[in-house]
Amino acid sequence: MARGAVFLGAGGGGDPYIGELFLHNQLAIGNSPEIIPASSLADDAFVLSLAGIGAPTVLVEYLVSERHLLSLLQKAEAFYGRKIDALISAEIGGANSMFPLALGALANIPVLDGDGMGRAFPHLEMTTFSVYGARATPAIFSDELGNVTTMDLLNDRLAEEAIRPVVNAMGAMAFSAIYPMTGEFVKRYAVHNSITHTLNIGKCIRRGREETDDVFGELLGFLNRPEDERSARVLFDGKVVDVSHETRDGWHWGRAVLRPIAGGDDEFVIDIQNEYIVARLNGRTETVVPDLICVLDRETAEPLTAEMLRYGLRVKVIGYSAERIMRRPECLKVWGPRCFGLNEDFRSVETLG
Amino acid sequence: MARGAVFLGAGGGGDPYIGELFLHNQLAIGNSPEIIPASSLADDAFVLSLAGIGAPTVLVEYLVSERHLLSLLQKAEAFYGRKIDALISAEIGGANSMFPLALGALANIPVLDGDGMGRAFPHLEMTTFSVYGARATPAIFSDELGNVTTMDLLNDRLAEEAIRPVVNAMGAMAFSAIYPMTGEFVKRYAVHNSITHTLNIGKCIRRGREETDDVFGELLGFLNRPEDERSARVLFDGKVVDVSHETRDGWHWGRAVLRPIAGGDDEFVIDIQNEYIVARLNGRTETVVPDLICVLDRETAEPLTAEMLRYGLRVKVIGYSAERIMRRPECLKVWGPRCFGLNEDFRSVETLG
Repeated sequence: MARGAVFLGAGGGGDPYIGELFLHNQLAIGNSPEIIPASSLADDAFVLSLAGIGAPTVLVEYLVSERHLLSLLQKAEAFYGRKIDALISAEIGGANSMFPLALGALANIPVLDGDGMGRAFPHLEMTTFSVYGARATPAIFSDELGNVTTMDLLNDRLAEEAIRPVVNAMGAMAFSAIYPMTGEFVKRYAVHNSITHTLNIGKCIRRGREETDDVFGELLGFLNRPEDERSARVLFDGKVVDVSHETRDGWHWGRAVLRPIAGGDDEFVIDIQNEYIVARLNGRTETVVPDLICVLDRETAEPLTAEMLRYGLRVKVIGYSAERIMRRPECLKVWGPRCFGLNEDFRSVETLG
Repeated sequence: MARGAVFLGAGGGGDPYIGELFLHNQLAIGNSPEIIPASSLADDAFVLSLAGIGAPTVLVEYLVSERHLLSLLQKAEAFYGRKIDALISAEIGGANSMFPLALGALANIPVLDGDGMGRAFPHLEMTTFSVYGARATPAIFSDELGNVTTMDLLNDRLAEEAIRPVVNAMGAMAFSAIYPMTGEFVKRYAVHNSITHTLNIGKCIRRGREETDDVFGELLGFLNRPEDERSARVLFDGKVVDVSHETRDGWHWGRAVLRPIAGGDDEFVIDIQNEYIVARLNGRTETVVPDLICVLDRETAEPLTAEMLRYGLRVKVIGYSAERIMRRPECLKVWGPRCFGLNEDFRSVETLG
């Protein structure tokens, strides 16, 4: 599942390794999270999202403790004056796929098979939850030391601006209980089955490696299943010849330039704003947000986050349709290409290339 | 009182004009704040501080509404589950002298004749409250639009770091309910009688102008009253020949250079970090924090904040002893000269010059 979560992270979302370790320990002592479909929820169920907030680089070094997760859960239940019926990931891509499962296993709370984007995004307000009227706040967040902040802000864009610097002051990493929602709302507006999808992607890569000679064929076969109404294709096969990283305004900005392994004039460029946001071959857009750009090791199909890209890596780049709901016009106003400063409108990976 | 508050602001704390207007309106409709000495408080009384937090330049343009102040009070009482018995200023210098009086008048809550520093300081943790073990948090703060944040942080230095950026995101100005304290604590550790002192300084300047030919003589006579065990003297009489201002890291940094009006080689330099922090004559320290450096118009004795200093102003600069409690060793660790980056230890205005 961690491997699938990195794939859907499309370069961002942070390495799920720490969450994976924690969850592994829970499983080892017999605590297994119950994963349920949204359809099994009562309309008046109380659903909350649990997310790590902070710099991915810190996230990797951050130890998740049972005490911390349970204490945040208690604070949230005290704040709302009721039990939480189910947890949901705000983003299934990267590290935040793991934490609801970890707390779900620990506190015996069901975890919904869904999330708010079916990928990873850099901003708090970039969720289907927010687009369709839920608010990220009241948000309760705490760090390992016991610092606690509760914010109730009028809109999620402001929450994004206000929460980042607090988390930075608190040590660059905190856990948050955000997006209080009803079961009815989640059934209508979540991206569904994303835990299952993540698991299946991971399984598919493993099976492709262990049982076939063509891991990319296996993976693309799975991603192009007709029932998903999504499409995936290899955009480029080559090596990283240049990569720049910069951390500015709390974002990870960067650009990776790829060339064919055998040489040649083709230049494939991926722009990074935490996630891979646009991929262009010789200047022509091949895939652009919210469709997913996924960079994988060309031998093992191991998905690579943006931090992992370095000179000389041999990779294949896959373009993959976003979930249908993510391409709706009201959604593209929040995470279409222009929201990332790109001077183009969204065009789907199916129509490009 | 507003004039006295600017005097004790020692260059900082912001212009009390808006709070003054608000309070004036309350008085006009018959709402008068009850000002009580700390000694009249029960030991188990619940005392809270109300403060504006934000850039002084925004503070000046910010409208204080009854609805906003009352809503913050309600949130604080709901959070603590009890009525607030008295309000206290965290800093008597500048704008924050006024807001507890405004809310006190509006909601009929007594206001303590005291504060946490007897002057103004740029940081949340620079109060006698914090030095002697109270915490600024839980802090509840809200802006005019209805955004609310509650923070419970382990130490006040962290609170300072975490709260500023949130306030900036919320629009650079918010009101906060901070420093929950008991009556017993306030009796022991507040700076006492500072509202009365502020009023008296203001009255003294007015009387000096209206009834004497020597407003500075009148003011210095008052400030040097033996019963206060404090001392004040004119450090320099001259004109501003150079002034620089810079806003950096959320602080107002600057330097004012003064020369004698009649000419001559003497150079008097005042360094600014929100407040006037050190005054030097020809390189020799004359007054340094926490003692107060107060710049006044040389004709009218109108106190001038750092933002008001400009080329050509003719001023007298007064050095004035801090309150006794403010000079204790444990206090100087938090607001002594080295806390402002100065390379010298505290020496009192009595021993300097």
